Amino acid sequence: MTDDGASIDPAPAGSQMGLDIAEQPDVLAGLLADGRDEIDAVARQIRARSPRFVLLIARGTSDHAALYAKYLLEIRLGLPVGLASPSTLTVYGSRPDLRDVLAIAISQSGGSPDLVGSLQAARECGAHTVAVTNYASSALAELAHAHVDVRAGHERAIAATKTYTAELLALYLLLEATREGSAAGAMSAAQDIPGLAADLLVSSASTVTTIAPRYRFAERMIVTGRGYSYPTARETALKLMETCYLSAQAFSGADLLHGPLAVVDQEMPVITVIPPGRGGEAMAPVVERLVAGGGDVLFVGGSPAAGADGRGAARIALPVVAEELSPLLEILPMQLLSRDLAVLRGGNPDAPRGLRKVTETW
Amino acid sequence: MTDDGASIDPAPAGSQMGLDIAEQPDVLAGLLADGRDEIDAVARQIRARSPRFVLLIARGTSDHAALYAKYLLEIRLGLPVGLASPSTLTVYGSRPDLRDVLAIAISQSGGSPDLVGSLQAARECGAHTVAVTNYASSALAELAHAHVDVRAGHERAIAATKTYTAELLALYLLLEATREGSAAGAMSAAQDIPGLAADLLVSSASTVTTIAPRYRFAERMIVTGRGYSYPTARETALKLMETCYLSAQAFSGADLLHGPLAVVDQEMPVITVIPPGRGGEAMAPVVERLVAGGGDVLFVGGSPAAGADGRGAARIALPVVAEELSPLLEILPMQLLSRDLAVLRGGNPDAPRGLRKVTETW
Repeated sequence: MTDDGASIDPAPAGSQMGLDIAEQPDVLAGLLADGRDEIDAVARQIRARSPRFVLLIARGTSDHAALYAKYLLEIRLGLPVGLASPSTLTVYGSRPDLRDVLAIAISQSGGSPDLVGSLQAARECGAHTVAVTNYASSALAELAHAHVDVRAGHERAIAATKTYTAELLALYLLLEATREGSAAGAMSAAQDIPGLAADLLVSSASTVTTIAPRYRFAERMIVTGRGYSYPTARETALKLMETCYLSAQAFSGADLLHGPLAVVDQEMPVITVIPPGRGGEAMAPVVERLVAGGGDVLFVGGSPAAGADGRGAARIALPVVAEELSPLLEILPMQLLSRDLAVLRGGNPDAPRGLRKVTETW
Repeated sequence: MTDDGASIDPAPAGSQMGLDIAEQPDVLAGLLADGRDEIDAVARQIRARSPRFVLLIARGTSDHAALYAKYLLEIRLGLPVGLASPSTLTVYGSRPDLRDVLAIAISQSGGSPDLVGSLQAARECGAHTVAVTNYASSALAELAHAHVDVRAGHERAIAATKTYTAELLALYLLLEATREGSAAGAMSAAQDIPGLAADLLVSSASTVTTIAPRYRFAERMIVTGRGYSYPTARETALKLMETCYLSAQAFSGADLLHGPLAVVDQEMPVITVIPPGRGGEAMAPVVERLVAGGGDVLFVGGSPAAGADGRGAARIALPVVAEELSPLLEILPMQLLSRDLAVLRGGNPDAPRGLRKVTETW
């Protein structure tokens, strides 16, 4: 149920989520057009502090954007990174020494009490704090030393879509600006992404419509990826859980081989996200094992390894971009799949049962 | 399939895992009796380095022991912690600045190439490195500045049980020794654990036998816990996946409310691990939502909140110990459940399909 009167003029199931999904090319283009001054200023502050370590604070969809940021930070900035366990700072009242630490909280609403409490504690413990949210007036934004607005506009559906890709792009620009001194290079590297996103939403729609009925009666699924595409696998699984009530489990390709592979048989649908570059190469042995185990594999990716040889149940082709930018595109057909499949299964992905837009956890 | 001749003298399904499970009280007692000198020496080295940040490197079951260590480090030692994404150091060749960093690799075999590669890279980048393994002659042990032997002896089944609880206790002793200067206090605090573990394996066996048939035809399950019990939830889910091919998903209680709660309905079995202390208190709103949503809840825990009011499908009672020690006991009935349920479903938990004892990932 949205704030803007769905009960007065009931919209078809999935239409709100569909509008959010369709807006993503414009949202990304808007951030590239208008976000630079704010991002450069926040990046300058971070560089002045020369952090030795980064703590990322997030939950749900935003936690997957945090995971993407973790890969960027470790690989491109050479900084060790921890994903915070918010309960240690809130429930257990831990007060670690966080001098030299950059703490970044990522949240659509900027209002969840445990995230606010965690960032507050991080600030009190000496961290330089940055909030990345969709609301400049949120509690997180006001609390942090600096704020980056992801500029996604009001999100209609409860399941987050456009705020996820906006968070990814904002984090990419912020961290590249921190690495290079300005966001100019990153803005240039990402300039084609909005257009490619628009094309992909059109070109993948028919493949998604064709593949969705395959999962009409599925109760469980495995989604796997590695490196930069592991956050995509996690977010895909969460979207399918939230909207389709599917027990979708995400594993990094390597973790899958350390135990969970045992659940894969002919009855288990698998979605494999194959990025270009090194992450995609590292998925090759995982794909071999999945295919050998009889898994029903949907390949998502643009690299030759991504099912182009005709193996697997189906393939959603993606344009090949720099590996670190591929998560911005990979998730788009997965959002379409979540929405279409939810409607096909008789649900309403705009307002999944049991969920609220702002989740209040402590 | 074990190394010691299962094909010559076939043992009943689950008997090898059963022997591993039953040995845990003796393994824990042995570590308390014999581990102190080694642990104190490693802790002294760590204290001399005064690390500012800790990087934990592990996969599979050992990754859940690492998660337990993360809570100990953040709450009791006040150190920020990151769980390494091994691919950033191996696949992507990232070389972060790790001076002032303590890197702990945790692995049963000590032989998985990506863990060895990650610890090697961490050492080259300036970290003080510690290996916690079950093999003193393993590649990880030889590579690290220091090694802690978890002294669990040869593990017969592929699904790890006694090496998990041995890792938990070794990490508890090592980190408390690092905090206090010696393991004496921790050894004293944990001295009752082997006896309580032995009692619990006996007392919970009949409850497990009673509850296991409830899940005979389940295809999916949710396991949840918070704080120190979140690693228990993760390890329980992995055990059920490995041995029963159940799509078992673990969520921290707070993360569950940020999306995955939508999948909980009357058809969804839920296992809720409720620790004593603050973690248990923080689970109260999660339990309310699960019960309100109609989930079929098995409570595991010793605190009054853990289903003692008769709510839920069943309850496995645990002795109440210090919250930070409760994970050593919580997992025991979950191991029994995994073994019993696997046999009930016609499988052999000693040798799950598709898995090897030493998983070689890069």
